[in-house]
Amino acid sequence: MRAAVYRGPGDIAIEDVEKPTVESPTGALIRVTHTAICGSDLWFYRGKTEKEPGEGVGHEPMGIVEAVGNEVTSVRPGDRVLAPFAISCGECEFCRKGLYTSCVEDESWGGENGGGQGEYVKTPFADGTLVKVPDRYADDQATLEKLLPLTDVMGTGHHAAVSAGVGAGDTAVVIGDGAVGLCGVLAAQRLGAERIIAVGHHEDRLEIAEQFGATETVAERDDAAAAERVRELTYGGANHVMECVGAASAMDVAIDVARPGGRIGYVGVPHGVEAAGLDVLSLFRDNITLAGGVAPVRDYAEDLMADVLGGTLDPSPIFTKTVDLAGVPEGYEAMDNREAIKVLVKP
Amino acid sequence: MRAAVYRGPGDIAIEDVEKPTVESPTGALIRVTHTAICGSDLWFYRGKTEKEPGEGVGHEPMGIVEAVGNEVTSVRPGDRVLAPFAISCGECEFCRKGLYTSCVEDESWGGENGGGQGEYVKTPFADGTLVKVPDRYADDQATLEKLLPLTDVMGTGHHAAVSAGVGAGDTAVVIGDGAVGLCGVLAAQRLGAERIIAVGHHEDRLEIAEQFGATETVAERDDAAAAERVRELTYGGANHVMECVGAASAMDVAIDVARPGGRIGYVGVPHGVEAAGLDVLSLFRDNITLAGGVAPVRDYAEDLMADVLGGTLDPSPIFTKTVDLAGVPEGYEAMDNREAIKVLVKP
Repeated sequence: MRAAVYRGPGDIAIEDVEKPTVESPTGALIRVTHTAICGSDLWFYRGKTEKEPGEGVGHEPMGIVEAVGNEVTSVRPGDRVLAPFAISCGECEFCRKGLYTSCVEDESWGGENGGGQGEYVKTPFADGTLVKVPDRYADDQATLEKLLPLTDVMGTGHHAAVSAGVGAGDTAVVIGDGAVGLCGVLAAQRLGAERIIAVGHHEDRLEIAEQFGATETVAERDDAAAAERVRELTYGGANHVMECVGAASAMDVAIDVARPGGRIGYVGVPHGVEAAGLDVLSLFRDNITLAGGVAPVRDYAEDLMADVLGGTLDPSPIFTKTVDLAGVPEGYEAMDNREAIKVLVKP
Repeated sequence: MRAAVYRGPGDIAIEDVEKPTVESPTGALIRVTHTAICGSDLWFYRGKTEKEPGEGVGHEPMGIVEAVGNEVTSVRPGDRVLAPFAISCGECEFCRKGLYTSCVEDESWGGENGGGQGEYVKTPFADGTLVKVPDRYADDQATLEKLLPLTDVMGTGHHAAVSAGVGAGDTAVVIGDGAVGLCGVLAAQRLGAERIIAVGHHEDRLEIAEQFGATETVAERDDAAAAERVRELTYGGANHVMECVGAASAMDVAIDVARPGGRIGYVGVPHGVEAAGLDVLSLFRDNITLAGGVAPVRDYAEDLMADVLGGTLDPSPIFTKTVDLAGVPEGYEAMDNREAIKVLVKP
């Protein structure tokens, strides 16, 4: 089969690789029909995190079930399914409590499971991983594009909101205008936030934030100025802050704009925070809770899907470019150059 | 009046200083009858944090009200009162939501308010700061010694438990066998924890932890070995971890023993954590919530006092040495040498 493969910083190639096969009785093979390129893929693409050359890439698959093991009960061949960025068994302590990302099986896309940006992937745990799209919507392309972000960024933005304790009537600050930040705005609105202040660096993205429910936007390029502006708007800081970037500077802004006693929900993979040193003293002095982490999006998929299918949730405007499998390298380039917020891939 | 004054690392002197006077209509002057030396005082005593020579020290006063301003309604001269380590106005947003430590007035003991380890202190905000001991117990020395820890360490240990989300039937791990850690054990037991694992370095203190309700103790000197032992005892980590030290190494142990999806409640003033770098990646990967901070002990005082007066809570065994005002320098020495867990001072 054909699949996108990491060859080194700035180098994604489309190559012939071995097609995954279902070996375990609980597994499933999926023909990928839709997937995406993730902001987190840019870390290795830019050489900022290590990745082994030759590895398959991509972790947001949606597609048609081709084959299942004989113990699989929740899906069957021909079903349209989506899969979170994390594979989960569905049966361990952590899966059962909804923390699918801490599944004890520790399986992930790539390797012999295949990367999401390829023609096929397999999961060893179909029932614990896959989310079936109801048959009625299984071939509705517009609906599928609205559902695809549930594999990662929409669930991740939601996790930021949940972790930050956002509820009805609240004021929420969303740090970051990437796909996760924008989905965070949608999530905060969905949870009933009254004021949503989106903080970012790109006017075009902040316009989408406004479409998604942001009541105010802050676009100061300088982080200290941005934090100052948010503190002005909130009369001293917000009780609910969603850190949707992962960079040390973004976490600093989050801490700067959190009100004493508030909560920061963070979902961006931390980069540089250890080296720079998290401002623990400020968290301590102000009793600010730091919650969140890698988002257990599998736990949120059904609820979010219900809202997408019900017509009240549509994250698809984050896809500003669409490519086929051959276009994946170009898609990485476009995201790297910030010419696209998020790239939809139709293999 | 006579008061303990910081003269430099390792040097506490008893000197004549100006007696505070009540100037504001909301203020009160207190003749200190009981106070204590705090583990946090050792940071400046050991020269590890900056402090201006000549400053009054101490922040855990209990005593008799001598005079009040004409707007004070909650106490009057002759009342026995205790005061938290933080002065609070009682009327700002943060005081009203129970986060007294973030009071916008930003007043503290020392300076013209007088340090707790002296003959007199004053608070500019009597109604917002002072907690009246019911008249029936106002001269009961044993009761007063049980109540004195509510000025700081008992409320702080309780804040660790609350921040870690400890509830009935839970397994809680308490890192630290100092006065706060021991009070944390009491607090966890009071909140209904079923298993309480106390982690420390001193057999004598861990014996008190057992008296206070610890069901198991871990005394490995090496941090990694201690963490490993806790993970064994908890089959992979605890959902509720109370970090009651503040040192970077203690926070590392707390993160190491937290179960994915768990909560760390931290109450020790962070020292060295910034330099060493908090292990944010582990928190992120495992969705561990970091909550807590400087404890708003004023908010907990009434509830904890009710239990002390009702006979179900007694933190006084943490006082293993008693001195008068002249003995305060000796008290610091004893705590510095770990010959006393906490020193009671009767000026």
